Amino acid sequence: MAIVLGDHQYGKAENRIVRIYRDSPRHEIHDVNVSTALRGDFAAAHLTGDQSSVLPTDTQKQTAYAFAKEKGLVSIEEYGLELARHFVDDVPPVEAARIEIEEYAWERALVDGAEHDHTWVRKGQEVRTASVTVEGTGDEQRTWITGGLKDLVILKSTGSEFHGFYEDEYTVLQPTTDRVMATSLVAKWRFTTTEADWNEVYAGVKAILVKQFAVVHSLALQQTLFEMGKAVLEAYDSIAEVRLSAPNKHHFLYDLSRFGVENDNEVFHADDRPYGLIQASVIRDDAPDAGPAWHQYSGLV
Amino acid sequence: MAIVLGDHQYGKAENRIVRIYRDSPRHEIHDVNVSTALRGDFAAAHLTGDQSSVLPTDTQKQTAYAFAKEKGLVSIEEYGLELARHFVDDVPPVEAARIEIEEYAWERALVDGAEHDHTWVRKGQEVRTASVTVEGTGDEQRTWITGGLKDLVILKSTGSEFHGFYEDEYTVLQPTTDRVMATSLVAKWRFTTTEADWNEVYAGVKAILVKQFAVVHSLALQQTLFEMGKAVLEAYDSIAEVRLSAPNKHHFLYDLSRFGVENDNEVFHADDRPYGLIQASVIRDDAPDAGPAWHQYSGLV
Amino acid sequence: MAIVLGDHQYGKAENRIVRIYRDSPRHEIHDVNVSTALRGDFAAAHLTGDQSSVLPTDTQKQTAYAFAKEKGLVSIEEYGLELARHFVDDVPPVEAARIEIEEYAWERALVDGAEHDHTWVRKGQEVRTASVTVEGTGDEQRTWITGGLKDLVILKSTGSEFHGFYEDEYTVLQPTTDRVMATSLVAKWRFTTTEADWNEVYAGVKAILVKQFAVVHSLALQQTLFEMGKAVLEAYDSIAEVRLSAPNKHHFLYDLSRFGVENDNEVFHADDRPYGLIQASVIRDDAPDAGPAWHQYSGLV
Amino acid sequence: MAIVLGDHQYGKAENRIVRIYRDSPRHEIHDVNVSTALRGDFAAAHLTGDQSSVLPTDTQKQTAYAFAKEKGLVSIEEYGLELARHFVDDVPPVEAARIEIEEYAWERALVDGAEHDHTWVRKGQEVRTASVTVEGTGDEQRTWITGGLKDLVILKSTGSEFHGFYEDEYTVLQPTTDRVMATSLVAKWRFTTTEADWNEVYAGVKAILVKQFAVVHSLALQQTLFEMGKAVLEAYDSIAEVRLSAPNKHHFLYDLSRFGVENDNEVFHADDRPYGLIQASVIRDDAPDAGPAWHQYSGLV
Repeated sequence: MAIVLGDHQYGKAENRIVRIYRDSPRHEIHDVNVSTALRGDFAAAHLTGDQSSVLPTDTQKQTAYAFAKEKGLVSIEEYGLELARHFVDDVPPVEAARIEIEEYAWERALVDGAEHDHTWVRKGQEVRTASVTVEGTGDEQRTWITGGLKDLVILKSTGSEFHGFYEDEYTVLQPTTDRVMATSLVAKWRFTTTEADWNEVYAGVKAILVKQFAVVHSLALQQTLFEMGKAVLEAYDSIAEVRLSAPNKHHFLYDLSRFGVENDNEVFHADDRPYGLIQASVIRDDAPDAGPAWHQYSGLV
Repeated sequence: MAIVLGDHQYGKAENRIVRIYRDSPRHEIHDVNVSTALRGDFAAAHLTGDQSSVLPTDTQKQTAYAFAKEKGLVSIEEYGLELARHFVDDVPPVEAARIEIEEYAWERALVDGAEHDHTWVRKGQEVRTASVTVEGTGDEQRTWITGGLKDLVILKSTGSEFHGFYEDEYTVLQPTTDRVMATSLVAKWRFTTTEADWNEVYAGVKAILVKQFAVVHSLALQQTLFEMGKAVLEAYDSIAEVRLSAPNKHHFLYDLSRFGVENDNEVFHADDRPYGLIQASVIRDDAPDAGPAWHQYSGLV
Repeated sequence: MAIVLGDHQYGKAENRIVRIYRDSPRHEIHDVNVSTALRGDFAAAHLTGDQSSVLPTDTQKQTAYAFAKEKGLVSIEEYGLELARHFVDDVPPVEAARIEIEEYAWERALVDGAEHDHTWVRKGQEVRTASVTVEGTGDEQRTWITGGLKDLVILKSTGSEFHGFYEDEYTVLQPTTDRVMATSLVAKWRFTTTEADWNEVYAGVKAILVKQFAVVHSLALQQTLFEMGKAVLEAYDSIAEVRLSAPNKHHFLYDLSRFGVENDNEVFHADDRPYGLIQASVIRDDAPDAGPAWHQYSGLV
Repeated sequence: MAIVLGDHQYGKAENRIVRIYRDSPRHEIHDVNVSTALRGDFAAAHLTGDQSSVLPTDTQKQTAYAFAKEKGLVSIEEYGLELARHFVDDVPPVEAARIEIEEYAWERALVDGAEHDHTWVRKGQEVRTASVTVEGTGDEQRTWITGGLKDLVILKSTGSEFHGFYEDEYTVLQPTTDRVMATSLVAKWRFTTTEADWNEVYAGVKAILVKQFAVVHSLALQQTLFEMGKAVLEAYDSIAEVRLSAPNKHHFLYDLSRFGVENDNEVFHADDRPYGLIQASVIRDDAPDAGPAWHQYSGLV
């Protein structure tokens, strides 16, 4: 038996880059959080402290800032692709690169009802996410792209039931035919293309997720998630799989009967912890292999 | 010399109440975080453990949830007023009550472009705040109300300068005539009335703050803050004072010249810490005394 | 009526300074978060954008880092005093300075039971705090110093009761003679001296607070807080007042009787929100006026 | 092509359970955060809303609280094993269960130097973690257990170098032979046993990790991580693999030369973001397959 180095990766996490386009008086803004990870044979650094194959994380940072100008930053998928290809193509020891990006949306400040040219208010709603993984060079090069969102907090005040569940000796939950259902949605979708109108697709997927949450009469959060993923796949041929993670943010009906006050699903306590957590993948049965698409930078440990 | 009890207060913090109005198929939602504090002579509890004057914090919680139905929850100022008056008027040991409320805005989910009746997405932008302080009973009763907001993240990509400042031996900052200016604004405004169209005033004040941030050509964040407060006072006679706290969220121009890349205010590093922090009050010179309006629940310590 | 500038202050918040003493192989570490605020007549900056009296917040930052070497950083009270006096004495427009500091404790790494010379593990328990306020120059100069701590999470599993409280129509809480009592303590103490063995006093006060929490048989958190403050004042003549803020971190006895399981104060649910919040000052009846000692940097808004 | 349900799991996350042992006057405390996830064929819930195979997340919560009494809670590995086996053995639709637990350590309050019987201060240092995965029933049942820790913040003020790295056109980092090295360590170790003195192993592994960080003269964080993992494997035969994730918490030497002040590795700025992030696995070359040991509850998305 020997003790050996297993999987390893390294990079620079959370570069907070803001890119302003100011070619006309009407500026544009892209506000992102970029993490870069390199994979390959960096055993020497681990085993003997030999850094000769290690591109410093500081260099990865410099590159991420420079590329925001050199390559542009209009969609996070495209920008991530440029970065990932660069590391794999131009830095010999790098066998694969994983770029993960969050984007924070801004909306133009309104001045007397009109959109301002160079002032924005952070939108504050969901965070858009993307990952790009590139492996190999030349004809062998393979690429995986995922889009996504997180922190999309959504709630419906009726149209949700939960009953008929399995019961054992620890089951005290009462069934209900009308409850508040709320979640802070995380969704990721895996593309089978490396060319798309990324910003348009993002807006479209988000609209579908929101619509399905609203219109599906829900017998369980599980059911709603499946319908959300299914509708996305039906709308976009270039997406092979949708993964969803949904905390069930419990809104407990508050017992006001003790005070002679009726509470017909009107007053709720929004509880913090614990929460249900439902996760599911919705996928085409002929989807290509996911490869490292879901292997997150922070996912090794 | 004796050791005595000084100022003291107690209550229940952060009741997470969600109130749904469902009188018609088009529901309404109000999502708030309510803290209640009672002031008075509670020395016996501190000195001997005698609770006979102490209304439990659990009771304050029950009251907050019950009032969301009994009194309604349409504006946080009005709801806070009902709660504060109740504690002072109906619980003999209570000499003053302070209610602090945060409200999280939701926007209706869009389904094929139309607003849904009972599904919402959390807006996620600024948090609306209010405080109500009521002291005394009967003809002696006095009331102070403040409105406010926090976490309004706003940025302008030009129209901001900073130069001509005082310099000493530790001054290395370079003056600039064009920089990114950004803040996460906290604002509070003190009313001189207890009756207003609270929701309308809130929308109006927010619009003014955003507009002024956009249109004032800024020589310093200090100047922008004053102009924001001044514009609010000019627009609303019922507001006597505006207090503003603005972290200067630094966006540092990234040095790309080392890589032969020009950076004409296009690529910035958004830094976390440290940050400048500017605070100011803008006030009418004939404003009535603020009394306990600004004495926050958590402000004693 | 005119609209005028009211109270105002500005500075650099959250400078994350780490100071290593390496004069011998056995290094020492001080890890702090420093905020500096300047007060005075900075109206020109607000009203016309004239910065000629404004020492940049960047300069304040540089000074804070430089003083960690020039003046040393052994106790946060002494270091804060140096910084505050500098701004007031050496920068003419500054009429008063407020320095607020947090310190994060580290303990030496253990290697085979022995303390290592230059490796530490962050202790992670409470955060030590201090504030220094200096007003005026020369013989008129006045100084206020507070010490403190926050995030000291402390719990007792018996020796705490709560009953005999005031009841109204919203009171459903059951009295108890044995409960878990827990809090995340914030305490601040106001000195009447500007010279002390600050680190020794800190350790002593913390020990007293912990001891009193443990040994006082509590009829209410209010009572425990008073006894904690009283014991500190009895021990330290140089402290005039202790302010305490204590969230009642509720540990609810979990109902296991539904499953035929007895729960004799053994299994609890630690709830997040809401929580009781008790605040009190314990003070000498001949304490000098507090002046601006409690006027926090972030306290204006 | 059809759209189908892929991987899925569900459970109750973050049950905040506090278990007090009070069989003698000297109480014991265990403070944990438990998440339970069930895996199996829950397609009906997703596809048609049929809950007949779904054990409610509320039931999982009740079970977690009940087991803290019924089975006891002395080590999180053992407690997690009891929970996981119960779900798989006693609830027919459940094919596998994943239990993830965090434990927060408390130390006894000191009263005049002596440990108190029923009062504790939260230690606040690292969080201990564990996961238990059980698949199948009867003779087919397989079990994977990992132990771990997170948030162990550790720093050395010398004994760390970084030079000789790969350079490209974006490389501007200066090599150094003496720097501060700091991280907030996450470590997990995979057991090949289901019976151990879990608390003893935990203490031992932590001590080794800390020792190696201190004594290894580091040419890179990568090297330190490998040596940490290797030492653990050398000490514990029952551990097959150690995974480590280490943000390089940058401490930048502050440039004081502008002020004529020498800074010989004495004053640093502790930066928040971005940070390097190094991840590695150290493993025996004959380690058994990891199976689902590393498939985190929240890892699907």
